Amino acid sequence: MNAARILLNEQSFTVRRARSDDVEDIVALLRDDDLGASRESEDLGPYSSAFQQIDSDSKHFLAVIERADGEIAGTMHLTLLPGLSRNAATRMQVEAVRVARSARGIGLGTAMFQWAHDYGRGKGAALVQLTTDKERPDACRFYRSLGYADSHEGFKLAL
Amino acid sequence: MNAARILLNEQSFTVRRARSDDVEDIVALLRDDDLGASRESEDLGPYSSAFQQIDSDSKHFLAVIERADGEIAGTMHLTLLPGLSRNAATRMQVEAVRVARSARGIGLGTAMFQWAHDYGRGKGAALVQLTTDKERPDACRFYRSLGYADSHEGFKLAL
Repeated sequence: MNAARILLNEQSFTVRRARSDDVEDIVALLRDDDLGASRESEDLGPYSSAFQQIDSDSKHFLAVIERADGEIAGTMHLTLLPGLSRNAATRMQVEAVRVARSARGIGLGTAMFQWAHDYGRGKGAALVQLTTDKERPDACRFYRSLGYADSHEGFKLAL
Repeated sequence: MNAARILLNEQSFTVRRARSDDVEDIVALLRDDDLGASRESEDLGPYSSAFQQIDSDSKHFLAVIERADGEIAGTMHLTLLPGLSRNAATRMQVEAVRVARSARGIGLGTAMFQWAHDYGRGKGAALVQLTTDKERPDACRFYRSLGYADSHEGFKLAL
């Protein structure tokens, strides 16, 4: 898939597959976050290894949203998951969504998800799913505003 | 990974990777469920196609739990997901967990998850995650009893 374009308030953004030289900017976005600040490390090594795994697997689309000046304004990680349940539905899972502080309040999050939903439909996904930390009430409101149903409890366990 | 063994109340179960000739039994388990009854179709075609996709991807482990007499007593679908967030943690996602009615009440679900957690650790997963429909209060209690935190809202949207 080629890069897609988002136009908002006369600003142009490009949605494209992340490259290895974007990893540092993506990690900076992950870190610049109330919950992410304590979770992310300074060492880029593990991120670069994970990037190689993601990038080499066509089921994954690690997206960056680039401003016209080259700055990374957002990121999201999409994964297509075949499965047997729900009449053998392919699910699209969304992880690691971030919008840069400098790009908030203009509808970029909504536009990113419209793009992601189109991408998922084009790949045959019948369902898109994600979880949000309950400590992110604004994010929960945002996903409800996009039409998502908070029908499920999201469970996590450290191994 | 070779098949694993579970011993419960002097019954022996084998955990193994599903084969194409298990698909019909797995779908029967998915259908024999309050929420699944209306979601699953009679036509096995889509399930067989999805099975091929799952089976050909080493990131997926579609497991069946087989009784000594050959009956399928349970199933779960594990997927290893590389990612950048949480210090580039590999997540293990669990979907489509079912225990046959005939095999409930003996601790098989707990044993399946103990096996799954060992499998995930062996594959380098730092985190295991799943969502459960809020209309499954018994399942929610079960996951809490295993140590899972219901820290997240699980959002879904049909595409």
